[in-house]
Amino acid sequence: MKIGRRISIKQYSPLKGTPSEGFIMRYQKLIKDVVIPYQYDVLCDKAEGAEKSHVVQNFINAAAALKGEDVGDGFYGMVFQDSDAAKWLEAVGFSLALFPDKKLEETADSLIDIIAAAQDEDGYLNTYFTIKDRDKRWKNLLEGHELYCSGHFMEAAVAYFDGTGKDKLLNVMLKNVEHIYKHFITEKHEGYPGHPEVELALLKMYRATGEKKCLELAEHFINVRGVPVEGGDGNFYKKEAAQRDWTVWGNNAEDSYYQQSFAPVREQSDAVGHSVRAVYLYTGMADLAAETDDKELLTACERLWSSITDKRMYVTGGIGSTGIGESFTVDYDLPNDTAYAETCASCGLMFFASAMLSQNPDSRFGDIMEKAFYNTVLAGMQLDGKRFFYVNPLEVIPGISGIAATHWHDKPQRPEWFACACCPPNVARTVASFGTYAYGEGENTAYCHLYAAGETEFSFGMKLRCETDFPHGFTVKYTVLEGSGTLAVRVPNWSVNTSVKLENSEISAEMKQGYAYIKVTAGDVVNIDLDGSARFVYSSSKAAENTGCAAVQRGALVYCFEGVDNGGDVLSLSLDDNAEITSGGTVPELGGVETLKVKGYRTSETDSLYTFEKPKKIPETLTAVPYYTWGNRGENQMRVWMPC
Amino acid sequence: MKIGRRISIKQYSPLKGTPSEGFIMRYQKLIKDVVIPYQYDVLCDKAEGAEKSHVVQNFINAAAALKGEDVGDGFYGMVFQDSDAAKWLEAVGFSLALFPDKKLEETADSLIDIIAAAQDEDGYLNTYFTIKDRDKRWKNLLEGHELYCSGHFMEAAVAYFDGTGKDKLLNVMLKNVEHIYKHFITEKHEGYPGHPEVELALLKMYRATGEKKCLELAEHFINVRGVPVEGGDGNFYKKEAAQRDWTVWGNNAEDSYYQQSFAPVREQSDAVGHSVRAVYLYTGMADLAAETDDKELLTACERLWSSITDKRMYVTGGIGSTGIGESFTVDYDLPNDTAYAETCASCGLMFFASAMLSQNPDSRFGDIMEKAFYNTVLAGMQLDGKRFFYVNPLEVIPGISGIAATHWHDKPQRPEWFACACCPPNVARTVASFGTYAYGEGENTAYCHLYAAGETEFSFGMKLRCETDFPHGFTVKYTVLEGSGTLAVRVPNWSVNTSVKLENSEISAEMKQGYAYIKVTAGDVVNIDLDGSARFVYSSSKAAENTGCAAVQRGALVYCFEGVDNGGDVLSLSLDDNAEITSGGTVPELGGVETLKVKGYRTSETDSLYTFEKPKKIPETLTAVPYYTWGNRGENQMRVWMPC
Repeated sequence: MKIGRRISIKQYSPLKGTPSEGFIMRYQKLIKDVVIPYQYDVLCDKAEGAEKSHVVQNFINAAAALKGEDVGDGFYGMVFQDSDAAKWLEAVGFSLALFPDKKLEETADSLIDIIAAAQDEDGYLNTYFTIKDRDKRWKNLLEGHELYCSGHFMEAAVAYFDGTGKDKLLNVMLKNVEHIYKHFITEKHEGYPGHPEVELALLKMYRATGEKKCLELAEHFINVRGVPVEGGDGNFYKKEAAQRDWTVWGNNAEDSYYQQSFAPVREQSDAVGHSVRAVYLYTGMADLAAETDDKELLTACERLWSSITDKRMYVTGGIGSTGIGESFTVDYDLPNDTAYAETCASCGLMFFASAMLSQNPDSRFGDIMEKAFYNTVLAGMQLDGKRFFYVNPLEVIPGISGIAATHWHDKPQRPEWFACACCPPNVARTVASFGTYAYGEGENTAYCHLYAAGETEFSFGMKLRCETDFPHGFTVKYTVLEGSGTLAVRVPNWSVNTSVKLENSEISAEMKQGYAYIKVTAGDVVNIDLDGSARFVYSSSKAAENTGCAAVQRGALVYCFEGVDNGGDVLSLSLDDNAEITSGGTVPELGGVETLKVKGYRTSETDSLYTFEKPKKIPETLTAVPYYTWGNRGENQMRVWMPC
Repeated sequence: MKIGRRISIKQYSPLKGTPSEGFIMRYQKLIKDVVIPYQYDVLCDKAEGAEKSHVVQNFINAAAALKGEDVGDGFYGMVFQDSDAAKWLEAVGFSLALFPDKKLEETADSLIDIIAAAQDEDGYLNTYFTIKDRDKRWKNLLEGHELYCSGHFMEAAVAYFDGTGKDKLLNVMLKNVEHIYKHFITEKHEGYPGHPEVELALLKMYRATGEKKCLELAEHFINVRGVPVEGGDGNFYKKEAAQRDWTVWGNNAEDSYYQQSFAPVREQSDAVGHSVRAVYLYTGMADLAAETDDKELLTACERLWSSITDKRMYVTGGIGSTGIGESFTVDYDLPNDTAYAETCASCGLMFFASAMLSQNPDSRFGDIMEKAFYNTVLAGMQLDGKRFFYVNPLEVIPGISGIAATHWHDKPQRPEWFACACCPPNVARTVASFGTYAYGEGENTAYCHLYAAGETEFSFGMKLRCETDFPHGFTVKYTVLEGSGTLAVRVPNWSVNTSVKLENSEISAEMKQGYAYIKVTAGDVVNIDLDGSARFVYSSSKAAENTGCAAVQRGALVYCFEGVDNGGDVLSLSLDDNAEITSGGTVPELGGVETLKVKGYRTSETDSLYTFEKPKKIPETLTAVPYYTWGNRGENQMRVWMPC
């Protein structure tokens, strides 16, 4: 057994309908009640106002094409359009585990039937190539996203099996694995996914089914990535591009940084290229390292983790600084207003963190997982679950953001469903499966990486109940309902004073790598008092944009200043970081979140663009709200880092 | 006579070889001794290390092609490659006016012979189309740059005539004007220049020759710009693009902001699109307004001037915030580190200012002309005249600048000659003709817009001598050598306390629109004492990047902080803007410029990217150097706006 293996969704159940159901549960209900139904309507082109999706119709057309019917120009959408259905099914699988729902399950079963019918007899599954041109299958790994879509269906299959016990999709994907295995291993076709994803998915399949080919394939794709090939100047994608006379959208085969193929993965050190591809790859690498006890691979993962979190990450857990290629850039290049910080990339950062935790329960991984979730991932979704951000800037100025050529991607308000619909279902599946990130298990050890109200059954026989209002509340109560073992609770880096106490006992927890370890048995209660003080955060001056500034954080939540709470204009504000941060009451429109008040100043308006006259600073009390709630009250200015 | 007509270069002579020859003269010598010879070598492909230019060979090949010889693929370079020769000749014309030089004149005469031989018998002059395909002439005004190149040759012709009295090139260009007139006026071909330039050049030709067709053509091009046409959805360029099946480099014909054709020019309010095109257009508009007393056009120019200088200009006089389309963006979008702020655009801003001054001697125009010149235009050239910046950021961080995808254009050091060689010759011609920006004349009035040591002969009979070490010295002495009239000297906005005194007299100057007017006669001496105090500059908080920051300025010179003077790292520095700015001695490697010292702090390095621990601030004295001298001592950090 691995040191800290993730639990499966079926091991976790929420505290439904109790007063202590908690924060995450409310989000999970939103996913179930709003997001999943809406996204299904989108897939079926029934959602009003949403861009055409055509996802379901693509599968129907692919099935018809396989029967020899002429479906003409029957594919619509991005080359990876299929994955929308997969991510929706995955979210449904997780959601059904939490909230059994016969009607939803029937709907999902029907979709699985439609998908299964679109699988080629040789196991191949992809509507784009099935409809457009079967002869082009596997000939454009750079752009084709076939392995990416397969990966998402594998994840969906495992989640749906866990959530419902039904294995139809799992069998479809095992057949798909056979096909992929035959093509890439048996027939020794060169190449590896342009967009990593199948690696981590194959490892999920392996853990769910024990099918060794899944492990072997994951290992293969990870091991060949970036290894020089014969021809194409050693670059596989360049070689591949030279062998075809068509392209999907003109990707540059020579940009080996974009898809992390510039070197064998074990030699990579800097997190580069398309940020979602990067963290999906690193997650697969970390998962594989755990499965195969590959120390060299783990060392590479540690380096890449450090590259991201020590030098290339926003204080909100956002990653990928630039919209150009949706990419990482270079160390300390973290612009706030032109940030890309894609929602999906922060989901992926959580995946990576979770994979690292599964072999090394160190709080630094959990700290970042928590940061990414409670700030960027949650910010990706409107509080009502109806609109989504792809891009999560740390500063927004209406009139510039979303308008200037350099800021086109930084929208001041969440848009509706996009043509490229990666982020909304990614948020949905991540929220729905929160329990699997929150809890892990090792030998007789129950790991609590994140605070999530609910009941968890660990494989070694312990059943644990967790009650908390985190991230807004700062007490966490664990009750051991059954069994015994060691409870290992992460003590977060923001909690300067933390008390971990076994009720009615003098025994104190043992600290190791930021985790409090305590032996427990049925009936035991462990109370955690976290430090809920609001604090100023400072940035290394190497991150030039933040120099002279501070941000505000309370618990896991990074705060921001919005115009609506601050007289319409936050650009003229500055903080007094010697003053105390106090509580400022709640905002009903933001779900009752607590605001923070900070003393500061408003700089008087200058008479011209530049002036020699020192502007006056007028004392003013500033109001901050949690970053994840920004942009929910109309278009207005927003700033995380404030001059001080 | 216009209120404040620019003088011609032949009216101005420098104070050669005297101890008071002044700052500009040293630059003009550099242009003569280093830049002009080097640029000539480039034109002839004889400069070591420079990219291939082929300019002269293009003319030789075009002449051969006209004779029916097969020159094959005889054109090399950008579509506007010809203009490099034109800008060089223009600089030579100005330089010869200042420093007669028989050898240089012979070289230039030979080049003019080569150019003249490449003129088609119908007056057309452009090597790209003459060599590649005569049938494509005038069929791609969007991209073809034919009128742009003609414009530069017209400017060169006037400057060379002024500098040498030789009219061969002037006659070539008069013949070219006839051709353009026939095509666009007589034969009524639709369309106008994709890159404005010919408008302002035609007006120079008109003033030099009195040829009415020049005025008429300039007026025509300005009047038809942005006026809806029949077809092409009213967009001329779209209509034109639909009529051809070829392109030079795939310009988007629908982007009518890029080339300022989104509306008739009299209706334009915001400075938009490619910034060099914009200011060249506005210069032509202002010049035309002056010639034709067109109040409506002047009002549009005033609006555009205000759009630039009140909302879209860096404190250094740089304009055009983004490298995407080398363009203006939106109000107050003035990023320091990703700035484009092209050197050529600041040259163009000077041209626009000068044109505005020619009809309204208001110091706000002169203030900006001075700001643009002494900061961005001069920063464009290495102190040794051998390397040039196109892009003039206000913050540079080696490791990010010039490397990150968003910062590719912001080089930490001046590169050598570029393939697109617009900026170096633009700096050369602007510096060489500085006298014509510095002085203007109206009815019996000698306008001194900028402080430039030298002797100027005004048309109304006054001869004026100016002695000054400006911008490093702050006294200016005007001596009336001959004649009499009114001396009108601009009092700059940065000079809080200014004394303007007629020696041995009680008469005081009369102030009007920022100019000190004083009646003078032969033998009179007027002494100006400018305020040389260094001051902090503040920005409107609407310019988000500058909030919480101050810059330092002394006289016309904006200062910056470079790593080399500040322990290698300027990002961890902040200013105490309550402290006095003091003089800090001189830097020999920077031509002996005076540094400034400011009290401030160095923020201690944090232990991680983000921390709750307030970094310590250790008092330190900061050193600033004039912005125009930055990047002359190797690659290092640079910052203009400093937290305070």
